[in-house]
Amino acid sequence: MQSKLQKEIEKLAKQARDASYKLATLSIEQRNKVLSEIALLLDKNRSQILEENKKDIEAAKKNKLSAAFIDRLTLTDNYVDSMISGVKQIIALDDPLNRILEERTLKNALLLKKVSVPLGVILMIYESRPNVTIDAASLALKSGNSIILRGGSDALNSNKILAGIITAALEKLRIHKNTVQLVTNPDREAVNILLEQEKYIDVVIPRGGYGLIKAIAEHSKIPVIKHYQGICHTYVDDEADLALAEKVCLNAKCQRPGTCNAMECLVVNEKIAGKFLPTLLKRYQDEGVKIFGDEKTLEIAEKHSLEIERAREEHYDTEFLDLIIAVKVVDSLQEAIDFINAHSTKHSEAIISKNQKKIKEFMDNIDASAVFANTSTRFNDGFEFGLGAEIGISTDKLHARGPVGLKELTTYKYLVFGNGQLRA
Amino acid sequence: MQSKLQKEIEKLAKQARDASYKLATLSIEQRNKVLSEIALLLDKNRSQILEENKKDIEAAKKNKLSAAFIDRLTLTDNYVDSMISGVKQIIALDDPLNRILEERTLKNALLLKKVSVPLGVILMIYESRPNVTIDAASLALKSGNSIILRGGSDALNSNKILAGIITAALEKLRIHKNTVQLVTNPDREAVNILLEQEKYIDVVIPRGGYGLIKAIAEHSKIPVIKHYQGICHTYVDDEADLALAEKVCLNAKCQRPGTCNAMECLVVNEKIAGKFLPTLLKRYQDEGVKIFGDEKTLEIAEKHSLEIERAREEHYDTEFLDLIIAVKVVDSLQEAIDFINAHSTKHSEAIISKNQKKIKEFMDNIDASAVFANTSTRFNDGFEFGLGAEIGISTDKLHARGPVGLKELTTYKYLVFGNGQLRA
Repeated sequence: MQSKLQKEIEKLAKQARDASYKLATLSIEQRNKVLSEIALLLDKNRSQILEENKKDIEAAKKNKLSAAFIDRLTLTDNYVDSMISGVKQIIALDDPLNRILEERTLKNALLLKKVSVPLGVILMIYESRPNVTIDAASLALKSGNSIILRGGSDALNSNKILAGIITAALEKLRIHKNTVQLVTNPDREAVNILLEQEKYIDVVIPRGGYGLIKAIAEHSKIPVIKHYQGICHTYVDDEADLALAEKVCLNAKCQRPGTCNAMECLVVNEKIAGKFLPTLLKRYQDEGVKIFGDEKTLEIAEKHSLEIERAREEHYDTEFLDLIIAVKVVDSLQEAIDFINAHSTKHSEAIISKNQKKIKEFMDNIDASAVFANTSTRFNDGFEFGLGAEIGISTDKLHARGPVGLKELTTYKYLVFGNGQLRA
Repeated sequence: MQSKLQKEIEKLAKQARDASYKLATLSIEQRNKVLSEIALLLDKNRSQILEENKKDIEAAKKNKLSAAFIDRLTLTDNYVDSMISGVKQIIALDDPLNRILEERTLKNALLLKKVSVPLGVILMIYESRPNVTIDAASLALKSGNSIILRGGSDALNSNKILAGIITAALEKLRIHKNTVQLVTNPDREAVNILLEQEKYIDVVIPRGGYGLIKAIAEHSKIPVIKHYQGICHTYVDDEADLALAEKVCLNAKCQRPGTCNAMECLVVNEKIAGKFLPTLLKRYQDEGVKIFGDEKTLEIAEKHSLEIERAREEHYDTEFLDLIIAVKVVDSLQEAIDFINAHSTKHSEAIISKNQKKIKEFMDNIDASAVFANTSTRFNDGFEFGLGAEIGISTDKLHARGPVGLKELTTYKYLVFGNGQLRA
């Protein structure tokens, strides 16, 4: 027997599927019109949005949630502006649908076209940031996908008003409101039931901490695009331009340490470690970075009266997301490659070297979504890569790897035109 | 505490990962040389292969396994020939690796390249057909992927000698033998442990019955490319060329009914049903096809003294894989589209019509890996589509949809070349 909640969730998922068929056939003009309407309504309903958001913030304060949590939850006038400009940016992007990816006439005169089409129904599960409601729905609408939104229950008032704006925009354009649905039931069991709707939902995209993503990946019967941690390395080769290496390593670690593409581990060739490390470690300390070094790093630091801590094995497997770095000295490019492939999360890795052959060797052998030469891992980002917008950075290898933009929210189908051909 | 089996399987998976890094950097000439050597050794060891296969066949007979099962298990001289020609076809295909998928210079002068690379490690789980050992390993080697093979235990002797041939070819070319590993432990628990090795294995491809695939998809922590059933429809429109429709419907149902792209359900517009069905149903019966029809089909059949059975709801959700068909009469294109989207498995669907607008409507609205106009669903196939070879036909939407060939066994990475650019 199905429970009431099961029935409710299954109905919601089926509604999303039904709406997705209609949405998939809308023209790019129609899809962009909804987005324009959303941008307009965000501006019009500014004060109500901030009012609803205030309710969530007050409840969060009452529940003694952390300052970081409340910071992520908080919307301001500037935030509404950036939501609006985000939607406008998505409007300006090329249509990801109906692209002809391949076209050929087969030897039996069948005409074959491989065409980009929406995935169908996306389930977005996220934590406290209410702006994800607008960002994710806008990307879904532009790419012709229905979306089910399940935000954190602490942001429910904010998410409700934002979802209400989307619904109003859909209704104005006479597009079915089930195209974008917010799950308002706070029951955690609702998520588990959603993850069983593989008949109606095509992909799950969780955004949040490692624990959330891992739990969803393990429970879901639906394919999941995972945005796991970034344990990102920069390898400074013995043939590096050391001045360049220093500024890149500072940028990769310190510019925004809380992001997944920030550098967490510095790997240095021992031939230049004695020359390179003292200045860099000093500069890191000036920036407030806490340093965990291996034996060789400790020796060098000691010679220069720099106080750093001894790295334990687990430091090389930690995403600090903070002003903390692990340092490892290696004796060769090969040792650097082996070390990085063993400890990385296949997110963003970099080499600093002037030797093109070594750069190629590093890039060929490192298994990651993006490999950088002589620049900062912080560039692994949909906007920086020119995708125009992103829903996250995938650490998966299947379907979408690295920045997930509009194209990555599509699949394809083959269209085959014949005149009575039969299989022999 | 890890069990002995857990340790054994984890070791095997890690070996595959380690070997994959070396394999990924081999040139196309080196990868093709291994394949040539495999083809050579298959020919040289022909009699031993058939001898080992005979052991499996005898055991299967002793165990009273079905004739169909033994048929799938059996290798003949012709089968060895077709394995050899299969390997040679793969050699002739273009290299799927190192293709530059995108290349652009970003506004900060970073050079960005998106390049095709191997997935890494493939786990192939299959049932009785021993030729899959050679087919899957050849596709994996060509696409630079390590592979772990887990065939059915009833084919163990056959799989062992075929895997032995692959190992000999690898060793001759000085490529690590762990690149292709056969799991010989017959314990079913070995599969469950394999499905937990997400650290070392990138994708699971199960080939076999619905039950096997479903069980693997539900247990696996590793992404699975699923080859589920094909409940394939052909819709005959009121504006169809009925002679063409008849021959296409016969081909789609009867030419090889046991395949996933064979038609299982005929959907007919009622305006032409009275004219079209009597001849077709008669021809189906001449071919030995058992027919389940809805009310309207029954009425038409009765008028023409054709004995057919009443369709029950479940017949429209069954993959018969046999000379059986379900027939449904609809009153419009829209009803046909809704019916097909509700009952299909998103595999292969067809429309027969002379009206181009209706064809477009059908193709735009039907959610399937391939949609055909005026030809047989049987064409949904990697060879027919010109992919050169296939490991199966995916019913997933993510990563690979429809025929899975060499390209679908690759992913991509971004290579970014800078000269000290920093993120602002």
